[in-house]
Amino acid sequence: MASKPLQKLTESLLQGNRRALSRLLSYVENEREGVDDVLAALFPHTGKAWIIGITGAPGTGKSSLVNTLAKAYRAHGTTVGIIAVDPTSPFSGGAILGDRIRMRDLSGDAGVFIRSMATRGSLGGLARATRDAIRVLDAAGFDLVLVETVGAGQSEVDIVRTAHTTVLVEAPGLGDDVQAIKAGILEIADILVVNKADRPGVKKTVAALKAMLELGHPASLGQLVAHHGRLLPVEDKANGRNAETPMWIPPIVQTIALETTGIDDLMTVIEAHRNHLVDAKIFAQIERQQIEIELHDRLRETLMRRFLQDIDDAILADVIAQIQARRLAPQTAIEQLLRHM
Amino acid sequence: MASKPLQKLTESLLQGNRRALSRLLSYVENEREGVDDVLAALFPHTGKAWIIGITGAPGTGKSSLVNTLAKAYRAHGTTVGIIAVDPTSPFSGGAILGDRIRMRDLSGDAGVFIRSMATRGSLGGLARATRDAIRVLDAAGFDLVLVETVGAGQSEVDIVRTAHTTVLVEAPGLGDDVQAIKAGILEIADILVVNKADRPGVKKTVAALKAMLELGHPASLGQLVAHHGRLLPVEDKANGRNAETPMWIPPIVQTIALETTGIDDLMTVIEAHRNHLVDAKIFAQIERQQIEIELHDRLRETLMRRFLQDIDDAILADVIAQIQARRLAPQTAIEQLLRHM
Repeated sequence: MASKPLQKLTESLLQGNRRALSRLLSYVENEREGVDDVLAALFPHTGKAWIIGITGAPGTGKSSLVNTLAKAYRAHGTTVGIIAVDPTSPFSGGAILGDRIRMRDLSGDAGVFIRSMATRGSLGGLARATRDAIRVLDAAGFDLVLVETVGAGQSEVDIVRTAHTTVLVEAPGLGDDVQAIKAGILEIADILVVNKADRPGVKKTVAALKAMLELGHPASLGQLVAHHGRLLPVEDKANGRNAETPMWIPPIVQTIALETTGIDDLMTVIEAHRNHLVDAKIFAQIERQQIEIELHDRLRETLMRRFLQDIDDAILADVIAQIQARRLAPQTAIEQLLRHM
Repeated sequence: MASKPLQKLTESLLQGNRRALSRLLSYVENEREGVDDVLAALFPHTGKAWIIGITGAPGTGKSSLVNTLAKAYRAHGTTVGIIAVDPTSPFSGGAILGDRIRMRDLSGDAGVFIRSMATRGSLGGLARATRDAIRVLDAAGFDLVLVETVGAGQSEVDIVRTAHTTVLVEAPGLGDDVQAIKAGILEIADILVVNKADRPGVKKTVAALKAMLELGHPASLGQLVAHHGRLLPVEDKANGRNAETPMWIPPIVQTIALETTGIDDLMTVIEAHRNHLVDAKIFAQIERQQIEIELHDRLRETLMRRFLQDIDDAILADVIAQIQARRLAPQTAIEQLLRHM
């Protein structure tokens, strides 16, 4: 059970208190003791928000797009929670992105809430904290949660994977390569946005994305496999290839976020993707897979934590010294250590 | 114990047989049964090679640099093993990089060996396979092992972290951003190379890297902490900040790989870095930390594998269904599952 103050905070959050929301998110980020109990108490109130992951390389205008999109949703009466994931340099300790000006633009409206999350220690920890923060915003009653990440790496792919709809943002003139390809992010994108579409080179960028899509989404394979290829366990792939599963070919939307051009189109395709997942009954399947991945992550961490608590530090140090002296192989060491359990 | 055929293969490898080397590397890549026993048998023969990680974004000419460097080392009589880590698209199943022409350039020389490693399934698996492949080349007697990766993400940072000297390759004209910054790779670079130094914009790239270094390596902090900030556990940081620890400021080397310009300079600074680590007795400390990280990785995976073997699949499926129905929180589910153990 959560402590009394945490219980009160939980109740305040469920009643829509913004200060309680802000404090709980800090607790999540700092992994404060007892926060797991709060998250467990909030969990039955989750599952209502639609989670949109928005990712792209620096310079694509991703943050402006998120802001403009949030304002457009607000104009329709939809409430929006925003989580901006800031990869923090281990040098500075500060956020690289840290664009706080944007907050001003949206503040004073209780229907929108922005929160930056920074890396503390491990990127794996960031993925977990982001997942928990999404749950808090979901329980707090936001209709949409936008999760903004810099598209650069496996951990961010993990974060994006907690989303229902994933939007990949590109922009013309950022170099010859479509940067996201290498990071494996194009594969998990549901919607492709070419932002800054008034810039020279927009046709080239759109053409490059189209070529990648044609390469990556051959109609013969079935889109679900291609699209959620890494989410689906191997044994489930046969289902994904089922001819009856409707296809979703990621549409390409051109936007100029600063002029709100193309934002309506983007909202339309986001809605279409949501309907697609729900109508085709893919949504429940994806949710089940996301839960399975989460359980595995949590089990792995919990098992390891318990092991490290139980093992004598001196034994571990001795094993490391023996490995370093090449008297013991790491493979053999694991067997020895687990016999101590 | 390894099976008879695997034992023979191990002996052949230690005697310098190239075909045995090639086959063992395939076994490592495919996680063939019994390969852990082979790796354990080889382990006492490792620890002699110097491991150089070479990383950079696509378009930096990283592969050409690796080839030119390997040839230069060969001219000095140094034997070189090369592992080119190919991030494979889950779409195509084939290597994106797949530049096989390079092999021709170096083949016919028993003192050099090139091997490409591709992603199969998880990137975590690739990091493990790369670590094992390095060990095989080390045991096979190569003086140097060059590990080439595309600098794009956490998993590649993990791969680079198994190196003793890490070289980050940049090139002019690849866009405004120094791409590696976001991926956290600049922080772990020991040597910065600006390749294609005959291209316009080289001064700008060098200046950008210098600025990043000044930001990232303030003399007051002590270089070891900044440099191996993520490797050092928190409680060890005090040692790293010790005023007596000599500093290593990553030098910036300009090269034109295709014309072998700057390659001698690069070899000189690699040698200087190696001497620095050994003379300052930092090497043993780094090696100990690398072993600790490896042990933790292996423990985490082994504990998880054992758990999944022991647990009834029906119980796991039921827990997932309950979570999806929001009748059970993931945090509570973990406690319940671990009580089954």
